[in-house]
Amino acid sequence: MFRRGGMTMSLSEPAWSLHPQLAATTRVAGDLPLCRVLAADDANFPWLLLVPRRLGAVEIIDLDDAQRMQLMAEIAQVSAALKQLTACDKLNVAAIGNVVPQLHVHVVARWKRDAAWPKPVWGAVPPMPYASGELESLMERLRRAIPLT
Amino acid sequence: MFRRGGMTMSLSEPAWSLHPQLAATTRVAGDLPLCRVLAADDANFPWLLLVPRRLGAVEIIDLDDAQRMQLMAEIAQVSAALKQLTACDKLNVAAIGNVVPQLHVHVVARWKRDAAWPKPVWGAVPPMPYASGELESLMERLRRAIPLT
Repeated sequence: MFRRGGMTMSLSEPAWSLHPQLAATTRVAGDLPLCRVLAADDANFPWLLLVPRRLGAVEIIDLDDAQRMQLMAEIAQVSAALKQLTACDKLNVAAIGNVVPQLHVHVVARWKRDAAWPKPVWGAVPPMPYASGELESLMERLRRAIPLT
Repeated sequence: MFRRGGMTMSLSEPAWSLHPQLAATTRVAGDLPLCRVLAADDANFPWLLLVPRRLGAVEIIDLDDAQRMQLMAEIAQVSAALKQLTACDKLNVAAIGNVVPQLHVHVVARWKRDAAWPKPVWGAVPPMPYASGELESLMERLRRAIPLT
């Protein structure tokens, strides 16, 4: 173990970091105890992602029992907040990961009038960037609903 | 409470039953403590579904905390068995429910050489019925891997 820049590091365990493809298409809303919470820059659907900060996790079954229980608790917490904030018709919750291998769980608010309904969101319609300030506003309301750090 | 045909029924709580659209496109593999486990009749991908036997559940957040923890445990159990049985490249796990409202969780084995890769499976390619006996064989191997009743 050694310390660099105030962080305790281990030579045998490289630090977790967010996959660049996730970082490129989302904004960071904050952290829950297990997961980094991201918001996709796609105004078609309010779309959050939970990324467990566990190095090398690809599948849900790569997490241990306690981590899986915590993942489910955080999925429920984020789902309830997103439903309350958006008054959506349906939540879509999914761990796919065929393109970006780092384990991430999508939590997407859907409406019967949205651009892709009833199809799943992946690849259904081109992403539509939010107007200035709108994604920040969604994340600010999310931060008031759940305790992100 | 009254008894009919050997089952204890309650007049105030109608019995849970599998949604007809799920019943029509799958075979029942058996029950875990919370979920009925189904196998989709689609030879494109080994594709299981977990359906919590809880009346009226549409979203994961319609389950209580203990049921959600049990759902995660059963997702992990079925995922590990499916991965072991198929030697797949990736698991896709999702609760979508835009078409069939009864809460159900897909657990799908994916390969980089499969008919839809890397797209999600829903609506990607037409279902291809299994050859005679193949789906029964998958379910039989599943029953040997996890304790379905």
